[in-house]
Amino acid sequence: MSNEKIEKVRVFALGGVGEIGKNMYGIEVNEDIIVVDAGLMFPDDDMLGVDIVIPDITYLLENEERVRAIILTHGHEDHIGGLSFVLKKLNVPVYGTKLTLGLVEEKLKEAGIWRQAKLHLINEDSTVVAGDTNVTFFRTNHSIPDSVGVCIETEQGYVVHTGDFKFDQTPVDGLQADIGKMATIGQKGVLCLLSDSTNAERPGLTKSETEVGQGITEVFENTNSRIIVTTFASNVHRIQQVMDASVKTNRKLAVVGKSMIRVMTIASKLGYLNYPDNLIIEVDELKKYDDEQITILTTGSQGEPMSALTRMAKGAHRQITITAYDTVIIAANAIPGNERSVSSIIDKLHRIGAEVVYGQAKVHASGHGSQEELKLMLNLMKPNYFIPVHGEFKMQHAHRELALDVGVKEEDIFLVDKGDVVEFSKGQARKAGKVPSGHVLIDGLGVGDVGNIVLRDRRLLSKDGILVVVVTLNKKTNLIVSGPNIISRGFVYVRESEKLLEDANELVSQILTKCMTENVNEWSSLKSNVREGLSRYLFEKTKRRPMILPIIMEV
Amino acid sequence: MSNEKIEKVRVFALGGVGEIGKNMYGIEVNEDIIVVDAGLMFPDDDMLGVDIVIPDITYLLENEERVRAIILTHGHEDHIGGLSFVLKKLNVPVYGTKLTLGLVEEKLKEAGIWRQAKLHLINEDSTVVAGDTNVTFFRTNHSIPDSVGVCIETEQGYVVHTGDFKFDQTPVDGLQADIGKMATIGQKGVLCLLSDSTNAERPGLTKSETEVGQGITEVFENTNSRIIVTTFASNVHRIQQVMDASVKTNRKLAVVGKSMIRVMTIASKLGYLNYPDNLIIEVDELKKYDDEQITILTTGSQGEPMSALTRMAKGAHRQITITAYDTVIIAANAIPGNERSVSSIIDKLHRIGAEVVYGQAKVHASGHGSQEELKLMLNLMKPNYFIPVHGEFKMQHAHRELALDVGVKEEDIFLVDKGDVVEFSKGQARKAGKVPSGHVLIDGLGVGDVGNIVLRDRRLLSKDGILVVVVTLNKKTNLIVSGPNIISRGFVYVRESEKLLEDANELVSQILTKCMTENVNEWSSLKSNVREGLSRYLFEKTKRRPMILPIIMEV
Repeated sequence: MSNEKIEKVRVFALGGVGEIGKNMYGIEVNEDIIVVDAGLMFPDDDMLGVDIVIPDITYLLENEERVRAIILTHGHEDHIGGLSFVLKKLNVPVYGTKLTLGLVEEKLKEAGIWRQAKLHLINEDSTVVAGDTNVTFFRTNHSIPDSVGVCIETEQGYVVHTGDFKFDQTPVDGLQADIGKMATIGQKGVLCLLSDSTNAERPGLTKSETEVGQGITEVFENTNSRIIVTTFASNVHRIQQVMDASVKTNRKLAVVGKSMIRVMTIASKLGYLNYPDNLIIEVDELKKYDDEQITILTTGSQGEPMSALTRMAKGAHRQITITAYDTVIIAANAIPGNERSVSSIIDKLHRIGAEVVYGQAKVHASGHGSQEELKLMLNLMKPNYFIPVHGEFKMQHAHRELALDVGVKEEDIFLVDKGDVVEFSKGQARKAGKVPSGHVLIDGLGVGDVGNIVLRDRRLLSKDGILVVVVTLNKKTNLIVSGPNIISRGFVYVRESEKLLEDANELVSQILTKCMTENVNEWSSLKSNVREGLSRYLFEKTKRRPMILPIIMEV
Repeated sequence: MSNEKIEKVRVFALGGVGEIGKNMYGIEVNEDIIVVDAGLMFPDDDMLGVDIVIPDITYLLENEERVRAIILTHGHEDHIGGLSFVLKKLNVPVYGTKLTLGLVEEKLKEAGIWRQAKLHLINEDSTVVAGDTNVTFFRTNHSIPDSVGVCIETEQGYVVHTGDFKFDQTPVDGLQADIGKMATIGQKGVLCLLSDSTNAERPGLTKSETEVGQGITEVFENTNSRIIVTTFASNVHRIQQVMDASVKTNRKLAVVGKSMIRVMTIASKLGYLNYPDNLIIEVDELKKYDDEQITILTTGSQGEPMSALTRMAKGAHRQITITAYDTVIIAANAIPGNERSVSSIIDKLHRIGAEVVYGQAKVHASGHGSQEELKLMLNLMKPNYFIPVHGEFKMQHAHRELALDVGVKEEDIFLVDKGDVVEFSKGQARKAGKVPSGHVLIDGLGVGDVGNIVLRDRRLLSKDGILVVVVTLNKKTNLIVSGPNIISRGFVYVRESEKLLEDANELVSQILTKCMTENVNEWSSLKSNVREGLSRYLFEKTKRRPMILPIIMEV
């Protein structure tokens, strides 16, 4: 880069602000675009039938030749879950730590793009050269091992993205967040800090993961019953602690649930889980052991209806059924939107009569720092400008309040929405328009082919179902040749509503006969007459508005 | 009742246990059935299109001549919302306090059954004679005025139903829960206590409603901006406190939202709200006042998409638009299942830049007693037997633990599900089978006509939409006369999927031709061949499974 040219740094989020999930940030240093994370989001309640949501990467595609790197801060789905979709369109180098790449590899293999992907292993001491820009890292603590913050060098100072973090003074693996390195970065000069807002509304400090282990061990030590533990598959440290508690109380461990097995296999292979060879047994070996010798580790901490835990509770699991003699530990919290399903699985387990241990207080700790930790990060980094990221707008807002508390000036804080660009030049920041951004919905194999019209139809269909009205007309004689036949799905019980449907049939005949008598016989008019007349009639009789699909055939 | 006959008392729940909502309990004393409450529940996420859910009252209908009374403990929807449906089938006398009946009247008028309904006003000192059984009451505190507990006299002692309660030492209306009367009931002898389990998992004491008023007043005193307050329409005491804060800070009050206006009209008329004549203004008078002279009280505390608050936030309300200059107080918590929509409205308001005050700590208190209050109730009543009610199973379970803590014996506590009968005879309790119970789904005017098949169809339709395949065959010539035509709704964008649908069309032709060549020409076989072949093809191409509706016409 020539020194004569004035450096421009641009920062924006393609996802992760104003929402929980699909984290993806862009940092441009002159001609270099560096992408941080490529996550997915789980669909809102009104995105019916949609499997996952990823960020709109139009801007990156339009500037393909300038995108130098995708940097992954850690291996959670909301940070790596969109990667395979992105790489299919934009095959740029990807950088991540060992466990993160381990998890990514698996996904890329599934998507059939692992061979062509350019994966580069980094650690906290690496320097990535992305075009003309250097990127370095610092170690953080989070609810998955091997998380890093990202530090992008510019002439105007560092642009720092914290990734997801907490400060855990007693982490399970003994690797504290590298406060010294963060302080050094802060001393050298941070132009702009992007920091995790998840727990900006929560006072105090987040509990150490080690305390969760103590809570779990206590339960293990005080029961003779079989223990079933569920947690997030990616929470490798917590899994380690369940293993440790099992070893301590002479239990064997059986693992259930595809994602749990997948993550544990990867984490074991890469050395993130340490346990004696004889700890883990197959599920069908369980019968050889007494209840007090058994731990079962399973998926299903969010009460997902098809998960192993729910099936075990319903007696619908092939091998394991939860009974009144079991102790179940739900070592997780409900992710927003899952409150009801988590509540419902706890209820089911109580109903069975099992001992159930759950809740933040005993057997869960957040992976995100609370207010005092967020302030510590701000004080370490001492940024000239601050952009709270990773959270809903109310969390970004609460994070701004914290920044104000530690002395960041109001005009130096940017509350951004997806696509908003903050531009830095000569050390000064300003809002600089927008890049395209939005939701791309993925349903089955379709990427982005479910849009507003499809969703609107699904919403209509889900509310009151559909009536298909089929009729064959002879246009020469202006007579109905066959039908009308009305087929109903999701509207009413046909058996209990025979009269209603017969009357509806009669009404359609009348409407059509009237139309044809009056020589209204373009298909579109016939159809709209049937639709409107029938809709009005059904609403009057039932106060429901099913979708009505008139099909008029001609002979 | 003859003294020679041994008295049988039977207690069961038709709703309200193992769930949040549709409270309805039956207490039978020999030949008398006394019903406590007749509530509704809002549908679960998987009850697509359903408006509300009420209890199955088959048992009451089968024993119609023995049902002596429906007693209402208070005016919340989960206690009175099912009444109009019940009375249509079972017109028995209804007893309730003034505000409760005020709210009920309105509902019965809407349902067109007010004239024939037999409503009887009671107060805490009333005695209701229900057949041969006396029923008395005691005053409680709750998040709506005029709440009572119910005390049913039997030879074996009282059966007490607490209704919903907390112990508020500083209630807004100065009327504390009548601890003295409860103690007296306890001294006389309680056979069985049914008590509110809502907050059985929450330690300590529930905050007084007066503290909420202080929180609200503090916000009022510290801002010059327009204030918009939302809370539950039925929380009359909280509305009173918003009025008081408005008077204190010289603001006029405008009320928005149908249910808010309805409840306030009733509560004012009946004397439950006290305010100067000139406090309330019409919404179109707002323009005459400065921001600092305005309070707007509105519905929408649960973030309901069509509520006044959401529309104001979206700029879709006819008269009021929330701006960055407003202060919004959300004086409510999220009812389970509404966490995401509440979170989303808070986010929207922050996005606008409004000052938003929310949360349990400042401007909300629960209407249900916490652990210490539940223990106090148990200690006052000293029941021989205890049935925790009003809550999910995990809450009933937690309530049982509290009862054990205060010395109730394990064998004297019954954890019941809907329909479970506990029978008392000679002072001894035992489980005595079940009465019919369940969910009755109400959709529009249909009561119970939406069942598993309709819901299953709605679920299928909501996930991947529907394809209607229409084809006309000539069975004599074994040829396709017209079609196949494929009509898609909620499956894929037709415009972007022309090729897919064309290929599907071709496939259907092939399947039908093959069938007819092989003389497989019963309609059912043709249809199932089309359905299966097309389904397999579409799943392969899209990984989606739309509902497929083959319509085969014959000429």
